[in-house]
Amino acid sequence: MSMKQVHVGIVGFGTVGRATADIIAKHGDLISQRSGVRLAVAAVCRRSSIEPGDTPTGARVYSDWKQLLQDPNVDVVVETMGGTGDSLQLVRGALEQGKPVVTANKNLLAGHGDELFSLAMSRKLPIGFEASVAGGIPILRVIHESTAGDRLQSVHGILNGTANYILTQMENRGIEFAEALAEAQKAGFAEADPSFDIDGQDARDKLCILARMAFEGALDVGRIPTYGIRHVRAIDIHSATRLDSTIRLVGSAEQTDTGVEVSVRPWLVNRRSMLAKVEGVNNAVFLVGDKIGTQMFYGRGAGGDATGSAVVSDLIEISRDFAAGQLHAKNIPGFLSSHQLELSETPRPVSWYLRLTVQDQRGIVARVAEVIAREAINIDSLEQEPHLPKDRVSFVITVEAVSEPVIRRAVNVINEFGFMVEPVLLLRIED
Amino acid sequence: MSMKQVHVGIVGFGTVGRATADIIAKHGDLISQRSGVRLAVAAVCRRSSIEPGDTPTGARVYSDWKQLLQDPNVDVVVETMGGTGDSLQLVRGALEQGKPVVTANKNLLAGHGDELFSLAMSRKLPIGFEASVAGGIPILRVIHESTAGDRLQSVHGILNGTANYILTQMENRGIEFAEALAEAQKAGFAEADPSFDIDGQDARDKLCILARMAFEGALDVGRIPTYGIRHVRAIDIHSATRLDSTIRLVGSAEQTDTGVEVSVRPWLVNRRSMLAKVEGVNNAVFLVGDKIGTQMFYGRGAGGDATGSAVVSDLIEISRDFAAGQLHAKNIPGFLSSHQLELSETPRPVSWYLRLTVQDQRGIVARVAEVIAREAINIDSLEQEPHLPKDRVSFVITVEAVSEPVIRRAVNVINEFGFMVEPVLLLRIED
Repeated sequence: MSMKQVHVGIVGFGTVGRATADIIAKHGDLISQRSGVRLAVAAVCRRSSIEPGDTPTGARVYSDWKQLLQDPNVDVVVETMGGTGDSLQLVRGALEQGKPVVTANKNLLAGHGDELFSLAMSRKLPIGFEASVAGGIPILRVIHESTAGDRLQSVHGILNGTANYILTQMENRGIEFAEALAEAQKAGFAEADPSFDIDGQDARDKLCILARMAFEGALDVGRIPTYGIRHVRAIDIHSATRLDSTIRLVGSAEQTDTGVEVSVRPWLVNRRSMLAKVEGVNNAVFLVGDKIGTQMFYGRGAGGDATGSAVVSDLIEISRDFAAGQLHAKNIPGFLSSHQLELSETPRPVSWYLRLTVQDQRGIVARVAEVIAREAINIDSLEQEPHLPKDRVSFVITVEAVSEPVIRRAVNVINEFGFMVEPVLLLRIED
Repeated sequence: MSMKQVHVGIVGFGTVGRATADIIAKHGDLISQRSGVRLAVAAVCRRSSIEPGDTPTGARVYSDWKQLLQDPNVDVVVETMGGTGDSLQLVRGALEQGKPVVTANKNLLAGHGDELFSLAMSRKLPIGFEASVAGGIPILRVIHESTAGDRLQSVHGILNGTANYILTQMENRGIEFAEALAEAQKAGFAEADPSFDIDGQDARDKLCILARMAFEGALDVGRIPTYGIRHVRAIDIHSATRLDSTIRLVGSAEQTDTGVEVSVRPWLVNRRSMLAKVEGVNNAVFLVGDKIGTQMFYGRGAGGDATGSAVVSDLIEISRDFAAGQLHAKNIPGFLSSHQLELSETPRPVSWYLRLTVQDQRGIVARVAEVIAREAINIDSLEQEPHLPKDRVSFVITVEAVSEPVIRRAVNVINEFGFMVEPVLLLRIED
């Protein structure tokens, strides 16, 4: 029996693209045994020049993705370029030519998923996108297939490995954010321009995809309130420790009676919480459903091997159908239904952590406490670190559960005080 | 457009069977929207009488599974009877009649999976069996689909919720095993005859299925060394705490250079370990792969809702294919290839915890230490609890990494000493 070969074209030959080619080369026999198809990398494309030794055996090398798209020998297109410029044109072009696509590009799908999944549906073609969220953790497949009989209430988790690595380093070594970031950059865990990771946009794009999958409706990624970890300081980690807690950047989407509550922000999480156990560049995603209860999925959230594995598992599924002449689009209601997810205007009350940095003068605590009391918020704890320079004193307040608009009103008033050196750092406290 | 109805017959209308019917009733519209098929429970069967109010609307009720099997209106058979007597005949009979099967029965598949998957393959029929391992955690789907491009090195985890509930209770409340068991029985988390759960057979059956799936070869379930938690005492939990650890019943299968190492046994796990965070009736499964790295999947391991959700997700997948006239068998190499997994004769060295209970007399420590030294085993720590009655003194030894046959030789010699009140309790220490 001759085995059907499926020819893969990889556009964007960086970490993930290379790892994908490498897995196909190294595990090719295994994949054939399991799936009955043989994957072959027929072409790769990268703007910068590729060393000949780096090229998969037998693959043509293009420097322009448009050429790869025209290559009649490419059966399936893998997009690992990132961004939303060329990648959008590439995915659109591939689908228009009748070629299935596998993409690792969360930014593209969060921004243009509606268009691309509609196009795929009209062409009866699949888009594999497991690699776009949480690297090697098969969370999209789980939501789509394993919870098909359940109604999900929430999805939340640690979705950005760079931010988590920085927070873990700050915690383990007592260093400041800037130092931890510089080290993450040196270790290759953060980009030269790290803003996408540390300011939360990367987590936001992933959360957008997760929320659409979980709650089966459209969600404009720009409407997700997003806060990063840039303003978290060593003193916050220190205060967290005193509160038997640590800090994690969490993306969270929750279905409530008043609509979907969705945000990316740093949380204060208890040491005993599963979220606190997620260290370094790892990711973890929690699903809560009516029937399944709470599930957690943990693993490497980034890196070539993990993300490449997700690309390859999608490639295998698509190639099997391709070889059998049974390519088809999947029904992904979160990107295909006209239903819009409604965001809650009155989020449910949660507890908060506020860190204030002030020029010390008499009466500060009284004035801050008065603002908080005026909003009928109860203070749970208050601590001022001793021995700090007078022109930069930090103190930390935790408050009992109130809705976000209420605490924001208080924070906005506090931020206007002349003694404030910088804005309040506000952390949500995990339930 | 008229929606295709798929008629489900549920045999074994206990916790899981009822939950399955309940989910189909409550989430029927949701399932139809997502999958394009409508599930209907056409028949249920239970030996003991079913209250009329308990029966799904419109379902026929049988007291003999053979009658349900003959019912021409049943399209898919769900087996939740348990055991390997009638259930084997039922699943065999259903496949022979051309009906796909969904089963939650680990015992059946661990013992007769080869026969049943072969039969299913020859009839081109699927067997859904996600519910057989770790309740609602979709671990089998993950292994089969998401790691299809990777080579797995190990699979291990907490596979029995009852045993984990008992260990957690012993730990949190300082109570003895017997008391924790009695409470688990009262709370409905342990059967009247709890031996299947507490002696490790339930975990062993699940591990057998996991190991076959992960390493793609046959494994005789009877060859898996299996130890339960019946002999774990409050003093062991106490000693574990002193060692900054706790105790968990772990099923583990690992691919090594010398073959597969497989066992179910209690482990001493560090408090900071993810395994230690798994409390109560929850399960957790860890996968380690060449490319994916370490992944963990956590959730409810038992209970009607979680297990019923897994049954329903399989039902949805099968029903979609059924409605499209595209039923097919899946290639599950672990149950279909002639390749036998080879068990390692020389397991890799690990550290061990030994608890001895003795009638106190002079020279015991010296004699025990001599036996250990004779096997060239290094003692890592030794502690005797103070203030114990002279006729029942416990002491705990931890030793550095040695292969299991070596520590077993020492333990066998120690067990022969006249001062031993009961056999040594041996725990593997997590790496």
